[in-house]
Amino acid sequence: MIMPDTSVLEIFESPCDTPFVIEHVSDEFTSLCPITGHPDFGRVILRYAPTPGGNCVELKSLKLYYQSFRSEGIFYEAVTNQLLDDLVAAIQNPLWLQVVTDWNGRGGIRSTIRASFGEVPVEWKTR
Amino acid sequence: MIMPDTSVLEIFESPCDTPFVIEHVSDEFTSLCPITGHPDFGRVILRYAPTPGGNCVELKSLKLYYQSFRSEGIFYEAVTNQLLDDLVAAIQNPLWLQVVTDWNGRGGIRSTIRASFGEVPVEWKTR
Amino acid sequence: MIMPDTSVLEIFESPCDTPFVIEHVSDEFTSLCPITGHPDFGRVILRYAPTPGGNCVELKSLKLYYQSFRSEGIFYEAVTNQLLDDLVAAIQNPLWLQVVTDWNGRGGIRSTIRASFGEVPVEWKTR
Amino acid sequence: MIMPDTSVLEIFESPCDTPFVIEHVSDEFTSLCPITGHPDFGRVILRYAPTPGGNCVELKSLKLYYQSFRSEGIFYEAVTNQLLDDLVAAIQNPLWLQVVTDWNGRGGIRSTIRASFGEVPVEWKTR
Amino acid sequence: MIMPDTSVLEIFESPCDTPFVIEHVSDEFTSLCPITGHPDFGRVILRYAPTPGGNCVELKSLKLYYQSFRSEGIFYEAVTNQLLDDLVAAIQNPLWLQVVTDWNGRGGIRSTIRASFGEVPVEWKTR
Amino acid sequence: MIMPDTSVLEIFESPCDTPFVIEHVSDEFTSLCPITGHPDFGRVILRYAPTPGGNCVELKSLKLYYQSFRSEGIFYEAVTNQLLDDLVAAIQNPLWLQVVTDWNGRGGIRSTIRASFGEVPVEWKTR
Amino acid sequence: MIMPDTSVLEIFESPCDTPFVIEHVSDEFTSLCPITGHPDFGRVILRYAPTPGGNCVELKSLKLYYQSFRSEGIFYEAVTNQLLDDLVAAIQNPLWLQVVTDWNGRGGIRSTIRASFGEVPVEWKTR
Amino acid sequence: MIMPDTSVLEIFESPCDTPFVIEHVSDEFTSLCPITGHPDFGRVILRYAPTPGGNCVELKSLKLYYQSFRSEGIFYEAVTNQLLDDLVAAIQNPLWLQVVTDWNGRGGIRSTIRASFGEVPVEWKTR
Amino acid sequence: MIMPDTSVLEIFESPCDTPFVIEHVSDEFTSLCPITGHPDFGRVILRYAPTPGGNCVELKSLKLYYQSFRSEGIFYEAVTNQLLDDLVAAIQNPLWLQVVTDWNGRGGIRSTIRASFGEVPVEWKTR
Amino acid sequence: MIMPDTSVLEIFESPCDTPFVIEHVSDEFTSLCPITGHPDFGRVILRYAPTPGGNCVELKSLKLYYQSFRSEGIFYEAVTNQLLDDLVAAIQNPLWLQVVTDWNGRGGIRSTIRASFGEVPVEWKTR
Repeated sequence: MIMPDTSVLEIFESPCDTPFVIEHVSDEFTSLCPITGHPDFGRVILRYAPTPGGNCVELKSLKLYYQSFRSEGIFYEAVTNQLLDDLVAAIQNPLWLQVVTDWNGRGGIRSTIRASFGEVPVEWKTR
Repeated sequence: MIMPDTSVLEIFESPCDTPFVIEHVSDEFTSLCPITGHPDFGRVILRYAPTPGGNCVELKSLKLYYQSFRSEGIFYEAVTNQLLDDLVAAIQNPLWLQVVTDWNGRGGIRSTIRASFGEVPVEWKTR
Repeated sequence: MIMPDTSVLEIFESPCDTPFVIEHVSDEFTSLCPITGHPDFGRVILRYAPTPGGNCVELKSLKLYYQSFRSEGIFYEAVTNQLLDDLVAAIQNPLWLQVVTDWNGRGGIRSTIRASFGEVPVEWKTR
Repeated sequence: MIMPDTSVLEIFESPCDTPFVIEHVSDEFTSLCPITGHPDFGRVILRYAPTPGGNCVELKSLKLYYQSFRSEGIFYEAVTNQLLDDLVAAIQNPLWLQVVTDWNGRGGIRSTIRASFGEVPVEWKTR
Repeated sequence: MIMPDTSVLEIFESPCDTPFVIEHVSDEFTSLCPITGHPDFGRVILRYAPTPGGNCVELKSLKLYYQSFRSEGIFYEAVTNQLLDDLVAAIQNPLWLQVVTDWNGRGGIRSTIRASFGEVPVEWKTR
Repeated sequence: MIMPDTSVLEIFESPCDTPFVIEHVSDEFTSLCPITGHPDFGRVILRYAPTPGGNCVELKSLKLYYQSFRSEGIFYEAVTNQLLDDLVAAIQNPLWLQVVTDWNGRGGIRSTIRASFGEVPVEWKTR
Repeated sequence: MIMPDTSVLEIFESPCDTPFVIEHVSDEFTSLCPITGHPDFGRVILRYAPTPGGNCVELKSLKLYYQSFRSEGIFYEAVTNQLLDDLVAAIQNPLWLQVVTDWNGRGGIRSTIRASFGEVPVEWKTR
Repeated sequence: MIMPDTSVLEIFESPCDTPFVIEHVSDEFTSLCPITGHPDFGRVILRYAPTPGGNCVELKSLKLYYQSFRSEGIFYEAVTNQLLDDLVAAIQNPLWLQVVTDWNGRGGIRSTIRASFGEVPVEWKTR
Repeated sequence: MIMPDTSVLEIFESPCDTPFVIEHVSDEFTSLCPITGHPDFGRVILRYAPTPGGNCVELKSLKLYYQSFRSEGIFYEAVTNQLLDDLVAAIQNPLWLQVVTDWNGRGGIRSTIRASFGEVPVEWKTR
Repeated sequence: MIMPDTSVLEIFESPCDTPFVIEHVSDEFTSLCPITGHPDFGRVILRYAPTPGGNCVELKSLKLYYQSFRSEGIFYEAVTNQLLDDLVAAIQNPLWLQVVTDWNGRGGIRSTIRASFGEVPVEWKTR
């Protein structure tokens, strides 16, 4: 089984020199259960604060990157942390980055996983 | 009456070495009122942060553990604290673990019980 | 007019030696306006943290205590503070106790009154 | 044009000697736009903590006071601050008082104005 | 392509000498994607605390300013920061100003961008 | 136990000579369970079409009539049919009259009872 | 007391020769209780099918007509039927016209009144 | 495996001689999957019109009857039809009786089953 | 002012020989008020039943057609009927076609316009 | 490209000899756009009335059948009609069968397709 494809991720330079916070919510994430092979469906929330003068992730490339998990067998906890690591690497040192995955559930149990990198910015604390 | 069965709980190693937070919501918990024997119905929310390099609870085993309360006569307050103690023991020293039980109500009164272990992680404080 | 009846309140020993938080929500509270005699309808929310090794309030007795206000003429602000005082006394020194009353409204104005005793526990601050 | 009428406001003595928080929500506030003369419609939220042994505002008189704005031409920002000043004066030195006005909107823009007096009490911070 | 028009923005003097917070929510913002030329639709939330004795933005002029983006090709991240800069300049040194843009989404991903200027006032922190 | 009081019901002449439909929804109905004496809480919906030139029920008197059930021990099914009979008699031959009672529930079961008199008018069929 | 002003109502020619249905919902209707003089607040829903080649009511004039009830003392049932009569007259023989008024309520009772003129068109029956 | 217990069902005489409709909604139904033995959770809606002078089902006995399925292994389709047959038999010839079961779902699929007996009464058709 | 562009509409052959119903909901329709030139925002719902062996409208071309109204000054009633006429012509004789436009509102009044062509199919009547 | 797999569909004999209606709602359907290859996400609603003594579709096999579309490039309109045809064939002559597909949308347009076979049963008409 081929690993999800980070090569599709594209970045662009942040349009401003002061901190701000970006949130992208995808309601259409799907991967496979590594035990049963059955599909998992969930929502992925990406939040980050680019370094002033740093990078933003391009929206269409983010969609393609998410789609590359479609045939991947991977646990909820692992996919969340891999998304975190891949996106921190792609954006190259954001001030803060958070990934929340919100799964429809199996066996009557819905799950949410939260992982983050860096310091929570004031824009998020007081939203 | 046999006590709920912690032997069904299985764990697996946390997939990463940095802190993150997991939330599992089960809308299908049922036990019995120890006084009247009538069924109680509720939602159980488990939240925890594994120790880096520590353990996660396996989802299907969690479901079976919850099902083992089906014939148990136990008060709201007691079941919440037993879930907390059993899951802290099974996961073996998480950084933080919280159990919230949310009951449909008896006599026109809905109840929610919250119990927790360890320090609240920043991922939960700023969610 | 006879005062609400605290003698129906029953307590039981807290099932654990560590702090936790209990919330009981009653959507069926009714008393009378002391001026007009017309019925007031509201929701009463009781939240408290028992002292470790201390007491919990028994749910059916709580319902009977609430019902004893049915023929009582009493202002929103006064009933909230009386519920607080009566329940703090019955539970005998909880770590924290909060009463919120949420009234359907009169004259197009909905009202909510909040009163509390003791220190807000971490379980409530980070819920 | 006659100014809104604060003389209708009545107060009564707070029923307890410890701090608590009162919230009154009126969904039926209307005044006039001072430029066009067209009606504005909004919700007014009053929150306050009486000084222990201090005063509460009587609910029916509050309704009449709000009704006295019905023919008043006044901006969103000004009416909010006038409500704050009038109610702080009527209640005579509350610990805290907040007025939030929430307007249906004109030209596709909904507006909310928040003004406050005094220190935010713990009952509101941890609600 | 002509830049959005800040000349339509009008201000008026704040009606009071103490801090307060104003929020204007527009559900009808539209600009163009700078790559494809297709329309983007979103909600713009402006929140600010005028300097005591300082300025407020006039509501109808704010609507016209937002409408001037209708034919503008501009990224989510850039429009948010331009709105921030233009409105801080127009209001001339508010205590605090925040712009949140909330986009309907493209490619199954909904986005929210938050940018702010100055210190968060207590009225917003404890709302 | 005294029967609910129909003498408080007042009527007034219908303001028009063509059929129309009136609906009054009361969210604050309470009576007592005839077995246990515990309070029942519910919503009462009255819908009717006055006979052209016939009568309407006065709103404040309707509220007083509903309040007269506060100490009445009566089953869900019986109270619904008594409301129907009393209101048909008071209005004196409406074209159509429907009573729906919607009860909060006992023992985890919510109940709704519907009773009606006369022909359903077209205004209700195509609402 | 002066009657509401139908002279502000303007019409324009229907843009097509086949039947269709128009619905205008105003959430900002207010008049006065003829007994107490207190304000009533409600929503007014106007639905109609113009005669092919007939007339439509102009939207801004409809708003002014509704505003002319602001100081009118009038019962729920009467205002609904007056709106029906005035609008049928202004539009000059629509195929169908329905007025629904939806009132916030007095004394804990919310009310809805429905009146109509003409035959219900198929577009409404199968919406 | 012992069959669910119809002997707990009790009836009482209908309080009126004209048709009306009763609906009981239980959100707390649970049985077992006959294949896997895992619990199923659902909502059961019972609607019926008693024969004039006929019978109604007593509410507490209905709750006990539903509880008797707690250890029963039975398919969604079968339990729905058994509820229909048992309740038609217990009530002894109602004019109409409908059972709707609404299941939380297994394998990401939520299910609803509807079965009915007799003629749909006008009270239900035009509700 | 140039008319909206029907030349962008593309069709494809219906995939089956039996009747079925298609519904496309666009939340992002905008045109201009022909009087004031200010933007109008609304939702457009297209529903139709292709003639067996007839045509369907291609989704991306529908989006482009809707976008061609962005600079068009046109009344609510007229745009609805023009959408109906254009789409009936493009699809070439559908069994049924309905256009519903749902506008955010001007002057506090929200509007919905419904126009249709042909016989309502059973799939829509019993949805 | 391989066609979706109907061989996984399993049936079982209907548990009763009278008509009833079954509804299965799957929120987790995904296929591919035949033009772009991008994933489509939607909800599939299956409703049917088995012939008395006829067949029902087994729930787990239905889930597997739906999953077999995961790599299929197919239009909204075509997949809906194929689901209808495959399920009518598998169940072998149901009294009624309806498939509704509800798609998240592309290009800002959400779509719903409805196809059906046989006569709508009374249980569905009066639900």
